[in-house]
Amino acid sequence: MKIAVLGTGMVGQALATRLHDLGHQVTLGTRDVGDTRQRLADSITADIPLATLSDAAATAEIVILAVQGGAALTTLAAAGPTQLATKIVIDITNPLDFTQGFPATLFVKDTDSLGEQIQAALPDARVVKTLNTLTADLMVNPRMVNDGQHTVFISGNDDEAKHVVATLLGSMGHMDVIDLGDITTARGTEMLMPLWMRLMGALDTTMFQFKVVR
Amino acid sequence: MKIAVLGTGMVGQALATRLHDLGHQVTLGTRDVGDTRQRLADSITADIPLATLSDAAATAEIVILAVQGGAALTTLAAAGPTQLATKIVIDITNPLDFTQGFPATLFVKDTDSLGEQIQAALPDARVVKTLNTLTADLMVNPRMVNDGQHTVFISGNDDEAKHVVATLLGSMGHMDVIDLGDITTARGTEMLMPLWMRLMGALDTTMFQFKVVR
Repeated sequence: MKIAVLGTGMVGQALATRLHDLGHQVTLGTRDVGDTRQRLADSITADIPLATLSDAAATAEIVILAVQGGAALTTLAAAGPTQLATKIVIDITNPLDFTQGFPATLFVKDTDSLGEQIQAALPDARVVKTLNTLTADLMVNPRMVNDGQHTVFISGNDDEAKHVVATLLGSMGHMDVIDLGDITTARGTEMLMPLWMRLMGALDTTMFQFKVVR
Repeated sequence: MKIAVLGTGMVGQALATRLHDLGHQVTLGTRDVGDTRQRLADSITADIPLATLSDAAATAEIVILAVQGGAALTTLAAAGPTQLATKIVIDITNPLDFTQGFPATLFVKDTDSLGEQIQAALPDARVVKTLNTLTADLMVNPRMVNDGQHTVFISGNDDEAKHVVATLLGSMGHMDVIDLGDITTARGTEMLMPLWMRLMGALDTTMFQFKVVR
């Protein structure tokens, strides 16, 4: 599929590389193509083209939002809400506020979520929240922990879009994908972040994951 | 050990019965002994005495707070903060606000927690937050799901108290107890509730648990 990954940090790079390796036609979208080209010269294959946020979004069937939570809405505004309409938008952001030090707090929670704010900003897009509860390495290589036996969650209003995303997750090696329900269920996974950060401290690693046993 | 369980709902009954069966000297504390005696006549063994909140707390070495979150602080006030001083207080509450319908929201979160509020109300007590992330049946019989292979968390400021609580959890069958750190880490486990509630909906059961794989 034609996939635009918006965001060129660790998460964006990891997802773009993995999806490219799986045979998808991936474009990395960035605010400043020249800057990003220099920064990523050594870290990402030349087979993955860089483009502006708008150009990347324009040609994609699926758009993955892989930026810091605080930049989510401005990134989508720069990508162009009209050309995102009807597309599947995979939201992997978390509403982390780092301005008060560690651990980060959440700038939206409990009665609203960043997933819902993104869906509200793109009313015709099919937003699916997922992959916001684990570190980048495990997003793309789940088998690095417990032989891949752990759980990822999806939240969204469009069942067909969730089916496409669940299939994509399966192709990356995710064996247990739980559909929590509509986009309001993103509140639950975003609010997992405080526990995730404390576990990172207690276990002294980011290489852990939640498995929902039942 | 001498253990007072404050609260006579499903959770309090389950914990009192299990700890009694493990050989502890358990007292169930309640606001109204006569009312509770009638209500529980058929559901709990006569070997577990009922007492007022204050009497139960007075004679206990460990006090378990097993009431709804909204009643946590008033229950402790009724039990008597002075006689709770220096004791281990196991806080298994969640700050759930059911007044706005389902799913419940949290009346404290992110920058504070009910665990911290309880510690602040009992500055000399050794508060340990635990068992607030799973259903009552699994608190006391972890093997009912995945042969007991799942995780519980502890948060608290006193290492010795956490060691005692971890040992108690182990005696109930909990094989993986993660010490998250001081009582502020209770924010993380309390904020797991929104995901827990959505999972209950998606899986149509309360018989699930989180296992932290690493």
